[in-house]
Amino acid sequence: MSRFLIERLRPLEEYVPGEQPRDKKYVKLNTNESPYPPSPSVIAAINAESAADLRLYSDPTGLRLKKALAGYYGVGAENVFVCNGSDEALSFFFAAFCGTDVPINCPEISYGFYPVFAQYYGTPYNAVPMEDDLSVDHRRFLGVKGHIMIANPNAPTGIALSPDEIKEILESDPDRLVCVDEAYVDFGAQTALPLLADHPNLVVVRTYSKSRSMAGARLGFAFAAPEIIADLEKIKYSTNPYNVNRLTQSAGEAALLDGEYYRENCRAIIRDREFTVSELKKLGGVLTPSTANFIFVRFPGKDGGEIYHALKERGVLVRHFGLERIKDYLRITIGTREECAVLIAELKNILGGKNE
Amino acid sequence: MSRFLIERLRPLEEYVPGEQPRDKKYVKLNTNESPYPPSPSVIAAINAESAADLRLYSDPTGLRLKKALAGYYGVGAENVFVCNGSDEALSFFFAAFCGTDVPINCPEISYGFYPVFAQYYGTPYNAVPMEDDLSVDHRRFLGVKGHIMIANPNAPTGIALSPDEIKEILESDPDRLVCVDEAYVDFGAQTALPLLADHPNLVVVRTYSKSRSMAGARLGFAFAAPEIIADLEKIKYSTNPYNVNRLTQSAGEAALLDGEYYRENCRAIIRDREFTVSELKKLGGVLTPSTANFIFVRFPGKDGGEIYHALKERGVLVRHFGLERIKDYLRITIGTREECAVLIAELKNILGGKNE
Repeated sequence: MSRFLIERLRPLEEYVPGEQPRDKKYVKLNTNESPYPPSPSVIAAINAESAADLRLYSDPTGLRLKKALAGYYGVGAENVFVCNGSDEALSFFFAAFCGTDVPINCPEISYGFYPVFAQYYGTPYNAVPMEDDLSVDHRRFLGVKGHIMIANPNAPTGIALSPDEIKEILESDPDRLVCVDEAYVDFGAQTALPLLADHPNLVVVRTYSKSRSMAGARLGFAFAAPEIIADLEKIKYSTNPYNVNRLTQSAGEAALLDGEYYRENCRAIIRDREFTVSELKKLGGVLTPSTANFIFVRFPGKDGGEIYHALKERGVLVRHFGLERIKDYLRITIGTREECAVLIAELKNILGGKNE
Repeated sequence: MSRFLIERLRPLEEYVPGEQPRDKKYVKLNTNESPYPPSPSVIAAINAESAADLRLYSDPTGLRLKKALAGYYGVGAENVFVCNGSDEALSFFFAAFCGTDVPINCPEISYGFYPVFAQYYGTPYNAVPMEDDLSVDHRRFLGVKGHIMIANPNAPTGIALSPDEIKEILESDPDRLVCVDEAYVDFGAQTALPLLADHPNLVVVRTYSKSRSMAGARLGFAFAAPEIIADLEKIKYSTNPYNVNRLTQSAGEAALLDGEYYRENCRAIIRDREFTVSELKKLGGVLTPSTANFIFVRFPGKDGGEIYHALKERGVLVRHFGLERIKDYLRITIGTREECAVLIAELKNILGGKNE
């Protein structure tokens, strides 16, 4: 920290992304990436010709991509915001609608970035308690003051609220925005998007990083009422107008041509999730009911941190969080069937070894 | 604007990027892009294999790219920040070091984004007067309160301060940061970078958008003391940690292998700038002494806005600014020799036609 950093930011504890180690090749199940490459149309869109065009600025309005997303999801282009990863949409939500003025309410345990955004923007943060089984009871959000941000399915539990529950939250107070972060919605949960037509206080945030295998391209998007989108654009044009590069814009558009490719990947991930869950249960694992591309598991009587380290030593990288309430859990991305099998085999070794 | 936008941002007037029209094919000389494609190594780095890797997150630390830049420019990797276009570095400078606490001082006429950042971050903004010839007298900055941000060469005039003048500003008050925005430095001006070793209050901001022909890839970088870099990283990790995508990181690294390719492009642009300047003078043009990849010209007795529109009608896009003091000027990017020739021919028609 330099002596020049402004006072307000000195206590700020920034977000810590999942590790991207370079020391050796891991079975990498720690950052919820897809085990499958982007679709053929995406691969085809990235070539020498598109590279040569990099001399020109990207379209700051992202209009072609917006129109393509609008067509794919059945909304208007004026309902779409595109951004440099969905974190940027979340960040802009705090900037535009919370700042120091309006509190934000999030599930007690959720995406670890939400409280960081709140701290950065000076937003009062209210962690809404979760149930004993780590589920979110939507009724706890009905009476809160301020806006709401919910990952749905939630991370790192994978547990989803139903559209009816989201609807009840939306209707409990139309003067409050409800931001539903649907990063993981394509693996078995239901989207809140159909609620948008009748609920101008809904913001749905999506990403290309998970089901669309484009974490490295940095592309997120959001759906909301046109005037909400205009506010997010205002933040963009006041900080970084050319926020999405050319190749990512065209890759994002190309991906929408291959819907069935991605749906098939999602089905494979769901199958492998069910396989992994059933194998982990055989090993004594206790799991939250995940509808995401990851699972959240603990082994009663075992220390989560120790298992994490033992797996890492054996070349399998998963995610462990320091938070007291979930310190015995591991969040494990669903990789290919082979990667899941390696995980299970190594866990067998580790847990077996400990029992002896 | 929605009713949810927080009070403080309601009067905010966002930045307006140069137009990227889609109605027809223009000779596009309005956004200071390079007329030449990225180098062969960049083109080679963008292929099906790198596209397939997009399923994985980019390295949030940007370490390989930082090391490559550090090696190229003769500084340490800890002196380098990489970002999603240089606008992001400028934005983070305001966020980290100004906020509402410390005023910023900029030349009265400069990159139009500086006052937008100031408004967005609530930073007191001081426009430092310029001389009659639109040059910046560095002595006007010696006594100001707060940090300093100077485009060098300045935009839209192209006039540069010397390293000695920057040094005098740096040494006038070591408790003040001086951010030198060197977006256009490769076309004939001198960088302040060698001053970094002895001046920990210097921040140098650079971009791949101009001399490196990668405006569409969105890649900027900055040099500063390690603790200043750490503060910029803190802003990044509190808002959008994966800010630079995979393809852009590898393209940025690849570009550094082809230094001579880019130097030759810069030499060509300088030659064509001198050619264009001399032709415009024959047409009665009055120009600021630009060392950038654009020129700033007016034709005494002629209305800048009218010439802008007449050129646009004839398929040549240049930039015109509404500011009173420069309303008769046009900022014209140096394209290929052929594009410069088209510009000159059309200007001849327009100016000749008007005189009749």
